[in-house]
Amino acid sequence: MSILVVGSVALDSIRTPFGNRKDILGGSATYFSIAASFFDKVDIVAAVGEDFPKKYITLLKGKNIGLEGLEIKKGGKTFRWSGKYEYDLNTAHTIATHLNVFKNFDPKVPKSLSRPKVLFLANIDPDLQAKVLRQIKRPQIVACDSMNYWIENKRASFEKLLDKIDILLLNESEARQFSGELNLVKAARLIVSFGPKAVVIKKGEDGVIYFSKRSHFVAPAYLLENVYDPTGAGDTFAGGMIGYLSRVGKTGDNDIRKAMIYGSIMASFAVEGFSVNKLLDISVTDIRRRYDKYRKITRF
Amino acid sequence: MSILVVGSVALDSIRTPFGNRKDILGGSATYFSIAASFFDKVDIVAAVGEDFPKKYITLLKGKNIGLEGLEIKKGGKTFRWSGKYEYDLNTAHTIATHLNVFKNFDPKVPKSLSRPKVLFLANIDPDLQAKVLRQIKRPQIVACDSMNYWIENKRASFEKLLDKIDILLLNESEARQFSGELNLVKAARLIVSFGPKAVVIKKGEDGVIYFSKRSHFVAPAYLLENVYDPTGAGDTFAGGMIGYLSRVGKTGDNDIRKAMIYGSIMASFAVEGFSVNKLLDISVTDIRRRYDKYRKITRF
Repeated sequence: MSILVVGSVALDSIRTPFGNRKDILGGSATYFSIAASFFDKVDIVAAVGEDFPKKYITLLKGKNIGLEGLEIKKGGKTFRWSGKYEYDLNTAHTIATHLNVFKNFDPKVPKSLSRPKVLFLANIDPDLQAKVLRQIKRPQIVACDSMNYWIENKRASFEKLLDKIDILLLNESEARQFSGELNLVKAARLIVSFGPKAVVIKKGEDGVIYFSKRSHFVAPAYLLENVYDPTGAGDTFAGGMIGYLSRVGKTGDNDIRKAMIYGSIMASFAVEGFSVNKLLDISVTDIRRRYDKYRKITRF
Repeated sequence: MSILVVGSVALDSIRTPFGNRKDILGGSATYFSIAASFFDKVDIVAAVGEDFPKKYITLLKGKNIGLEGLEIKKGGKTFRWSGKYEYDLNTAHTIATHLNVFKNFDPKVPKSLSRPKVLFLANIDPDLQAKVLRQIKRPQIVACDSMNYWIENKRASFEKLLDKIDILLLNESEARQFSGELNLVKAARLIVSFGPKAVVIKKGEDGVIYFSKRSHFVAPAYLLENVYDPTGAGDTFAGGMIGYLSRVGKTGDNDIRKAMIYGSIMASFAVEGFSVNKLLDISVTDIRRRYDKYRKITRF
């Protein structure tokens, strides 16, 4: 097996100036795994309720995503998030969060999945992220996401976890929140001092920064004319980045750089449609073509 | 002669979280010309009052900047701007603007300066920008800046001017304001439809976008750990970009790209000190070194 992702599989209800959608497929593990599936084999560890639509199971299976670790809780309801975006599409305003089965999510990694090459700990309680780490043989790469809530309410657990991971992915406001530094170079330097080999700071349409003790790298986002729904962009970025690293099986400087570009490319597709719709529409050729175009509009 | 810039030479008073400065050298033509002086010969057309400190005249002359077109108005006072920056350093909050001699600024291009290779129309009334154009032989490149005030209050004049210029430089909020489009690709496309060969949209610490009918290019900003005073960053960017284009004497796709990077590099130095202080501290070697570093942290 190759990539293991532990996170959420959810039903999202989204309002944007371009339309509304109800109970569409969402969740960090969903976006991540679909993006990563273009690069390598992915298995999910997550939980959904009995109400989780069969068609979404079929959809994930259709992407060759392993669902042995997807627990379907008897009598439970699937995690639901509803959110709203204004015209600028930069900030999600949460309307409601119903954790449902996700509330008592206690990730159990099946024995058959306990030796992944690469692990992505999507945004869940850092105590659970640590628990997952204890259930598996140390993978070649451990990458990890988080969110403002855990940074604020589980800071000690989060800090302890940082020492055990290779790549931490945060968005710029989380990086500033954790570090107390407005300047992103200072923020990144401080974060890396807590143990992770590298931090990736995601700035949405303003690109991404990679920062390790040895080097750093900056990349603009792929320029888009039509953005419909930014939900899941960060997890899709992670899926492209980690997926690529898993496929090449190396984490040299240039591998990381290419991986970040693939992450940006995958995220650029994700936001062009609601839910994972656009990701389901594209082929490896589309990804390759956009990667080449990206190179063309950034080289000098 | 090579580059002609028409704009302001001013005295700024700046408050930032890192300190305050009173009556320091500022103005669009000042920042532009000092940045451009590293690449080619520059002449200024501007006006100051009798109170303009001799030391600043000496300073500009020391950079080999031609001051034949700098009018020193008898009994007049120099244009003064005072502004304040909060911790995020992204937005200038104007405290006071005293136009003084700049109020009735009526740019007169001396005969000896009427055949520039490159013209930069810094941010002044678009009617005056058009007046400058009528006084000179059409240069190889005409670049132009503006601001929200003119876009709002002199829209017709500004639109008319657009047809006569090659490169329009705007920051992202101005581009959105002029076009009525939030999305920058749409904004750029609309702006270019008014006549300029290309538009450069400056996003400050989030980089810059170049957009013409034929091609586009995106570049992240040089990553800085210490930003002290963002005043003049946009004009310094223009100085680096236009200065480079003037030196190479070509505007091919790759020349434009390199020019944008030089613009970004010059701006990155400018914000590392108050006024033009850092720009006075650096050498061509420092610029070259930072350019190489920039290439290193962006290539993949």
